[in-house]
Amino acid sequence: MRILVLGGDGYLGWPQSLYLSSKGHDVTIFDNLMRRHFDLEHGFHSLLPISTLHERVAAWKEVSGRQIQLYIGDTMDYEALAAVFRAFQPEAVVHFAEQRSAPYSMIDRKHAVFTQTNNVIGTLNVLYAMKEFVPNCHLVKLGTMGEYGTPDIDIEEGFIEIHHKGRSDVLPYPKQPGSVYHLSKVHDSHNIMFCCKVWGLRATDLNQGIVYGVETDETTQDARLATRFDYDQIYGTALNRFCTQAAVGYPLTIYGKGLQTRGYINLRDTIRCIELAITSPPKEGEYRVFNQITEQFSLVELAEMVASQSKRLGLETQIGHLPNPRVEAEQHYYNAVHTRLIELGLEPHLLNGSVLESLIGLALKHREDIDRSLIMPTVSWRTTKNEVSPTDY
Amino acid sequence: MRILVLGGDGYLGWPQSLYLSSKGHDVTIFDNLMRRHFDLEHGFHSLLPISTLHERVAAWKEVSGRQIQLYIGDTMDYEALAAVFRAFQPEAVVHFAEQRSAPYSMIDRKHAVFTQTNNVIGTLNVLYAMKEFVPNCHLVKLGTMGEYGTPDIDIEEGFIEIHHKGRSDVLPYPKQPGSVYHLSKVHDSHNIMFCCKVWGLRATDLNQGIVYGVETDETTQDARLATRFDYDQIYGTALNRFCTQAAVGYPLTIYGKGLQTRGYINLRDTIRCIELAITSPPKEGEYRVFNQITEQFSLVELAEMVASQSKRLGLETQIGHLPNPRVEAEQHYYNAVHTRLIELGLEPHLLNGSVLESLIGLALKHREDIDRSLIMPTVSWRTTKNEVSPTDY
Repeated sequence: MRILVLGGDGYLGWPQSLYLSSKGHDVTIFDNLMRRHFDLEHGFHSLLPISTLHERVAAWKEVSGRQIQLYIGDTMDYEALAAVFRAFQPEAVVHFAEQRSAPYSMIDRKHAVFTQTNNVIGTLNVLYAMKEFVPNCHLVKLGTMGEYGTPDIDIEEGFIEIHHKGRSDVLPYPKQPGSVYHLSKVHDSHNIMFCCKVWGLRATDLNQGIVYGVETDETTQDARLATRFDYDQIYGTALNRFCTQAAVGYPLTIYGKGLQTRGYINLRDTIRCIELAITSPPKEGEYRVFNQITEQFSLVELAEMVASQSKRLGLETQIGHLPNPRVEAEQHYYNAVHTRLIELGLEPHLLNGSVLESLIGLALKHREDIDRSLIMPTVSWRTTKNEVSPTDY
Repeated sequence: MRILVLGGDGYLGWPQSLYLSSKGHDVTIFDNLMRRHFDLEHGFHSLLPISTLHERVAAWKEVSGRQIQLYIGDTMDYEALAAVFRAFQPEAVVHFAEQRSAPYSMIDRKHAVFTQTNNVIGTLNVLYAMKEFVPNCHLVKLGTMGEYGTPDIDIEEGFIEIHHKGRSDVLPYPKQPGSVYHLSKVHDSHNIMFCCKVWGLRATDLNQGIVYGVETDETTQDARLATRFDYDQIYGTALNRFCTQAAVGYPLTIYGKGLQTRGYINLRDTIRCIELAITSPPKEGEYRVFNQITEQFSLVELAEMVASQSKRLGLETQIGHLPNPRVEAEQHYYNAVHTRLIELGLEPHLLNGSVLESLIGLALKHREDIDRSLIMPTVSWRTTKNEVSPTDY
């Protein structure tokens, strides 16, 4: 199948592209290299060294004999986007080409405006390009579980049957996103649902949980095929930060009470889920939503798992609490349905000791490269700035 | 009270500014004159002649002795927006500064992108300006009843209590907007709700129905104070188009079956509702939603009311049906709760014979200026274009 991966240079986009290529699909990457620019902007780096996109693609050719095609371009540039749709005629589009960090979107007004413009308008352009060039193509769009927030009822997969005053209807699940970034994903969801309805496009919206892990069957074949491991306050997830803190003997820093519960998924499962979505496409005009998680943990549970695994590795690990820089419920009900991908055939890899050991091992191996000053949060939801100011890390 | 009216030159913004000024408030208008630009772009005009913004403000000073201050600027230009917030220190902001036509947003990709960028990012800028300069200021934001779509259950005012699997929560009412424009209002609602939560801003989101009428106690004091009457396919509402068609002896053109039911409100009630919202502000951090309608009608009911009133005026009026250029349910349940503004003291002016007579009378009076080619729809939801093309009207 001809598959276009938008944002194929990122943490997920790259191993996804490799995986689909390894399965014999004809893969084209479209990427504006923005994720690498964010590193430059903030002085961040992937703890696991990564090659340039051109080196990666060449290494994959060398290792597998398979060619991934490459377009450097921006979803905000409709001319560039149209060119790849016109030339490649994709049968499926996997859309990772969004700014995906909540703290990044909360730095200041300019970062907020950038996030919503890039994500929402970029996706609008993708929808128009599909309509114009490949109306039967299947859009596989990465959403986030964070769109739902933390309602006091079970979270369903995109839609909920509501009984109200003696009548009932199945309606889009109410959204309570917790950052300007999460808001952008909610906006996307509404835009995509509408375009499916009016133009007959077909789309799968994957409300993904927090992804962990760096290894796939493809990335481990050559060091040049590695994907990112981020531990900084902006792009590092709590789990990555905890593993990094454990490696350097720093307390694991939980934001607030730490009873914030979220859905998680292994990188290997993420790339498999997207393949499952692609191989069982929705009908013409159908907009469907899958919750792409396999387990849920609170921050405290996560920290305790890291601490106990660290102990087995001979590390002394404390757990500390920081004032929460975010505005969120720190203790809440959380139960998110996630059966649709299992029904399609997903066999989950769970977060066990050996996964944690490999992540902590990665941090230990690259211990000398860890910049501790990048871990502590400086972006506050309550006091987000308005204008550009010197970076304070 | 110091009240900033964003978009104070438009159909609603202008009579709103006059009304608040007449009540003794200190009113400043911020407007980029975009609505007049849309007329230039399409060769449209208000059937009721309107003065320039500068003439209007001068005429109001002459008639009432009251000064409305004027800033020409764009909400997309944060520097300009910040300047007026800094200088004027508003206690309330009434935000009309959005592209407000569904067909306009569906012309082509560029008009879609413009609508969502202008509306969503413009409003984000307003929220950041409030946070920076006047965190206690009250945002009165114009939303639309079209955010809800046509669910098969009663429409509540912004939030709904959902009982699900033995638990319950009050959550944002699910949204099913029917155009790129309506989507932009849904995006705004989510953004505003979030900023109230994280920054403690206070906001009233007025999900307004379709407004009709041109006369208020202020606009009728001098011809130079008139507000717009649009009858074209892009900016004219169905009621305005019907009144105009009746005046020139053309069949009233209903889109599809005509059982599409919507909420309506008189211009006099709209401006009163906003005053009621301003004088009973929400608490710090509160985001509240009022459904700003007083009645609901189907298109067929509306056409029949216009036809019967026309007959009384000696006009021969037929009713016809056109293929629906929109994608929408043409027969559906519709029952929208609208009690919160009544509870605050609204006394509705309903759509009666004398209101219809005055609208048809307006069209008759300016009959020579009616361009019939502007009324028939050319913008199709299903075949919206991608690139700029010659206007086909």
